[in-house]
Amino acid sequence: MHVILPDGKQLELPRGATALDAAKAIGPRLAQDALAATVGGTLTDLMTPLPDGAAIGIITKKKPEDAAPLFRHSLGHALSQAVGEFYAGKGYPATAVKRGVGPAIENGFYQDFDLPEPLSEEDFPAIEALMREIIGRNLDITRADVGKAAALQQFSYDPYKVELITALPDDEPITFYTQGDYVDLCRGPHFPRTGALPTAFKLMSTSSAYWRGDANNPTLQRVYGVAFATQKELDAYLERLEEAKRRDHRRLGKEMELFTIDPLVGKGLPLWLPNGTILREELAAFLKEQQFARRYQGVITPNIGNLELYKTSGHWQNYSDSNFSPITVDDEQYMLKPMNCPHHVRIYASKPRSYRDLPVRLAEFGTVYRYEQSGELNGLTRVRGFTQDDAHIFCRPDQLKKEFLDVLDLTVLVLRTFGMTDVRFRVGTRDKGSDKYVGSDENWEAAERQIIEAVGEVGLPFTIEPGDAAFYGPKLDFVIKDVIGREWQLGTIQVDYNLPERFDIWYTGEDGADHRPVMIHRAPFGSLERFVGILIEHYGGDFPLWLAPRQIAIVPIADRHNDYAHALEQELRDAGLRAEVDDSSNRMNAKVRQAELSKIPVMLIVGDAEQAARQVSVRERTGDGTKERKAVGFDDLKAELLKRYSERS
Amino acid sequence: MHVILPDGKQLELPRGATALDAAKAIGPRLAQDALAATVGGTLTDLMTPLPDGAAIGIITKKKPEDAAPLFRHSLGHALSQAVGEFYAGKGYPATAVKRGVGPAIENGFYQDFDLPEPLSEEDFPAIEALMREIIGRNLDITRADVGKAAALQQFSYDPYKVELITALPDDEPITFYTQGDYVDLCRGPHFPRTGALPTAFKLMSTSSAYWRGDANNPTLQRVYGVAFATQKELDAYLERLEEAKRRDHRRLGKEMELFTIDPLVGKGLPLWLPNGTILREELAAFLKEQQFARRYQGVITPNIGNLELYKTSGHWQNYSDSNFSPITVDDEQYMLKPMNCPHHVRIYASKPRSYRDLPVRLAEFGTVYRYEQSGELNGLTRVRGFTQDDAHIFCRPDQLKKEFLDVLDLTVLVLRTFGMTDVRFRVGTRDKGSDKYVGSDENWEAAERQIIEAVGEVGLPFTIEPGDAAFYGPKLDFVIKDVIGREWQLGTIQVDYNLPERFDIWYTGEDGADHRPVMIHRAPFGSLERFVGILIEHYGGDFPLWLAPRQIAIVPIADRHNDYAHALEQELRDAGLRAEVDDSSNRMNAKVRQAELSKIPVMLIVGDAEQAARQVSVRERTGDGTKERKAVGFDDLKAELLKRYSERS
Repeated sequence: MHVILPDGKQLELPRGATALDAAKAIGPRLAQDALAATVGGTLTDLMTPLPDGAAIGIITKKKPEDAAPLFRHSLGHALSQAVGEFYAGKGYPATAVKRGVGPAIENGFYQDFDLPEPLSEEDFPAIEALMREIIGRNLDITRADVGKAAALQQFSYDPYKVELITALPDDEPITFYTQGDYVDLCRGPHFPRTGALPTAFKLMSTSSAYWRGDANNPTLQRVYGVAFATQKELDAYLERLEEAKRRDHRRLGKEMELFTIDPLVGKGLPLWLPNGTILREELAAFLKEQQFARRYQGVITPNIGNLELYKTSGHWQNYSDSNFSPITVDDEQYMLKPMNCPHHVRIYASKPRSYRDLPVRLAEFGTVYRYEQSGELNGLTRVRGFTQDDAHIFCRPDQLKKEFLDVLDLTVLVLRTFGMTDVRFRVGTRDKGSDKYVGSDENWEAAERQIIEAVGEVGLPFTIEPGDAAFYGPKLDFVIKDVIGREWQLGTIQVDYNLPERFDIWYTGEDGADHRPVMIHRAPFGSLERFVGILIEHYGGDFPLWLAPRQIAIVPIADRHNDYAHALEQELRDAGLRAEVDDSSNRMNAKVRQAELSKIPVMLIVGDAEQAARQVSVRERTGDGTKERKAVGFDDLKAELLKRYSERS
Repeated sequence: MHVILPDGKQLELPRGATALDAAKAIGPRLAQDALAATVGGTLTDLMTPLPDGAAIGIITKKKPEDAAPLFRHSLGHALSQAVGEFYAGKGYPATAVKRGVGPAIENGFYQDFDLPEPLSEEDFPAIEALMREIIGRNLDITRADVGKAAALQQFSYDPYKVELITALPDDEPITFYTQGDYVDLCRGPHFPRTGALPTAFKLMSTSSAYWRGDANNPTLQRVYGVAFATQKELDAYLERLEEAKRRDHRRLGKEMELFTIDPLVGKGLPLWLPNGTILREELAAFLKEQQFARRYQGVITPNIGNLELYKTSGHWQNYSDSNFSPITVDDEQYMLKPMNCPHHVRIYASKPRSYRDLPVRLAEFGTVYRYEQSGELNGLTRVRGFTQDDAHIFCRPDQLKKEFLDVLDLTVLVLRTFGMTDVRFRVGTRDKGSDKYVGSDENWEAAERQIIEAVGEVGLPFTIEPGDAAFYGPKLDFVIKDVIGREWQLGTIQVDYNLPERFDIWYTGEDGADHRPVMIHRAPFGSLERFVGILIEHYGGDFPLWLAPRQIAIVPIADRHNDYAHALEQELRDAGLRAEVDDSSNRMNAKVRQAELSKIPVMLIVGDAEQAARQVSVRERTGDGTKERKAVGFDDLKAELLKRYSERS
């Protein structure tokens, strides 16, 4: 057989040869440095037999990061082996430690265990030391195929392995990976020896996990680790984690009194505290201004609807997992509304529409309720009740592209306003082989073409994801990267041929006949809860002036400046700015520190000199410290702050 | 025995004498003119025996309006007699017409019937003619006491009368009133003869009514009439009714596209259309501005809550008639929130509070849901889901009066802004004899005193209504009179000692110990739905500029002025004004008429001259017609409109 090397040359090899054999055939130095291989572009290990004619590449210790999934997987085995030795050290026989799955994951690995006594995070240093020792032993990691009977024999003490092996086909070889006296049922791929594994790893946490993810199965203990090719990368990652913890919206939400979740009110039902309410209302006001300019029309609809409405829309049948149970009212049934669309469709249908009236753009900050399992709930980003910045555009097919472009323009404007410039788009198109879609081929082709053209015109990166369309029409998702590099999926723009059909809505065309409008569903923020959660983390609580719930702290140097401070406060508040005086009995430095801890962006310090000249000393938080200005005229400053506020700069 | 006359003189009369006897004793002329009497200030008729020592007055035909309840009641008998004669005329025996109750009501009377065939409104002229004929017969109306057996005998054909008579005590006389051959079981009081009854009456409508208001009983047919002492009063009343119909918020709500109610969405659940949404949001913005100035803090809470929350608050137990049925979520139960208070109390309780932090004023435009019987639902004024302009003030007892005064000040400001200057207040105090109240005597006395003082300081009329307090504290209701004289109960301000107790909330006093705050519940609008409903009727749809959903119509005289019109529209919209161009193919006069029908307050007409000089012709709706201004500079006009808009003038 032969394989093809990166430079295009063919290399003859005996049948059954591995990537290591290929590396050896090229040269002993390469064989020595080799860590992993790619076969047809897919990452694999050196021990797996190569298929005839494959294009292969060798990954060496010069670029171990290219083989990160492999060393993460192998570190999982090292963990597994170390845990075995840890319990052996406590006097347990080797058969006392039973094992579930243990894959590589993003940034690291995990391994599930059924242990004779639970592992605690305090055991991590000892286990990490054992893992390092195993790496130091530089054990060869070897691959071998065994028969099913032998496999069952080998793991007879471990019911999880027995279950897995039993489920495998009888006539196919079963792969084991071995390092020293540790053997595991595993498909691979792995590094060639433990000595090649990076030591830049760290065990992070344990959690419980059902065997095979099924709540009816026994609970296993899962141990998580992170691992990188270099210590520098690991440190950077851990620093990012620390940074994420500092920015955690649940922590900042509590410290800055933005929201609270109260079990007596309900799980997953945030209560917006005064500071959070300001933030949310500033966002809504910003979007409403944009929507007024773009000729959207606001509507307000109830939080419940007759079940017949959701049967007509299909929500009742198609989203039963997230529907709350119905409420019986006289001889009718009602449900908490999971989406605003049916209500908006009924508003469209409340009067006859002509082709001249279209597009009709109905917008609502609509609060919806969807069931989520309590274990899935998380602060503001995963809740059971949330408010969408929802709108539905009813247009003629010939208006679709223009409307879509306007929605895209609005979306990009919104994201840029928050400094979210790292945005990518995913266009979900139809899987042409499937028959699950509603709407004519003609409409689909036109809609997909118009969306792709529209996204192309915006000039931002996008990918086309065939098969990712909703069953009722193509869609566009947008994903932003926040300042610490995390990606967040925000809203979606969807084209819908389905609801107009189900609700039988129409407009009178220029030809006098009835035609179906197309609907666009859109929400630039997605949900105000989730968006605010993301914004808190994005800004780390250091909001720009216009968004800051507490904008201006006025700090009198001594009690005799309190009246002056309160007079300024009143003037600023009369102008609509959120100013407050700290007239507590604390010393000035403590007041300044308090305002900084509260992340109030602008601080005005007033003493004798300022009071005499109607001036203030200004201390502002900037991205990287504070900026101070002395003896600033108050009226100029007020005008400056008002300008920055109204311009949202 | 004796009675006391209005001039203080005593008049000796034989025992059992009536007011007519008294009138006769005074003089034959008075006896002839007498229509009714007052006994101890209570209206009664001339035929009822007088008690010894009573202060009496005689009402004569000079002031028949003082006896309106009597002639309305007697006209009810005339109707009853006329209906009997009407069916006799159709060949039915007298016993075929059976009768329920027939009292005087505000502005008129009604009578319930069980008829051999239903009466239609087309029969009204014939029945009114018979009533006038009965008046023309000038029949004496006489009162007589009969025994129970005789009474049962007399009405044996009428199961309703039999039921009523059977329920009366055996040993008391039963009163009949008779006019001609018409006899009715009746306590009175009545006019002395049919000839004295006014002819200024009109039958208005029929409806169905359960016998004794119980849905398990047979349905009777109710006939309504209105009646006044003079034709002038009747005409004025009918004109007011017509005016009310013209202003009906359901009619205007549809014509002006303010809201719609869609059975597929749900009964009593208004959908706010774009124009209504603007109106509602202008109201909310106005109040939010006031609340910011008064240092309220906004909060937002979910529309549902755990049932435990409402058990703690007592809503679950105490308001079961208006609660929607619970929603089961996992092992918990939730309910649509009927009030925002429990949520706000939990926000108060979300952190420790010191005496220095109080008052805490939490405000929310909170949407709540309460069950109403479907027959009770009415447009925006009686609904199942509505948004309260709610706030809860948590204060120390020593802050109560000041806070109450501020709420009153805000309420009066709000009402005056809408020209609702005819306001009266009702202070509901405790019934000292009852033990249904919670809270200490000391707190109650202080709170009642402070409320009465506060209302007194505002200088508006108020009445004290002992026993009208809520069980948890005294309250203040406000009632406005609209431009056509109808009274509307708006919001209420309540003082609450109960919820702080039930939720065990507290603040740390200056003394370091825990103290209970007092709560004030307040909502100047009451509910946005109801308030907008009332506003629509109050203004008859002719909203002032700041509230008008469509503020400015720009009318190009010819097509060649369309571009100029659209340029002005854009400038006005960029400034935040709601401007629109009518660029339809209609002629100018039709466009002007259309804008007037749509009740758009400002119209700008643009032709060659205007376009050449960047001017407009302005046509504005005023209370009593239109005001026109020619050749107004556009920039001046824009500034003027913006000023009026921002000042809400």
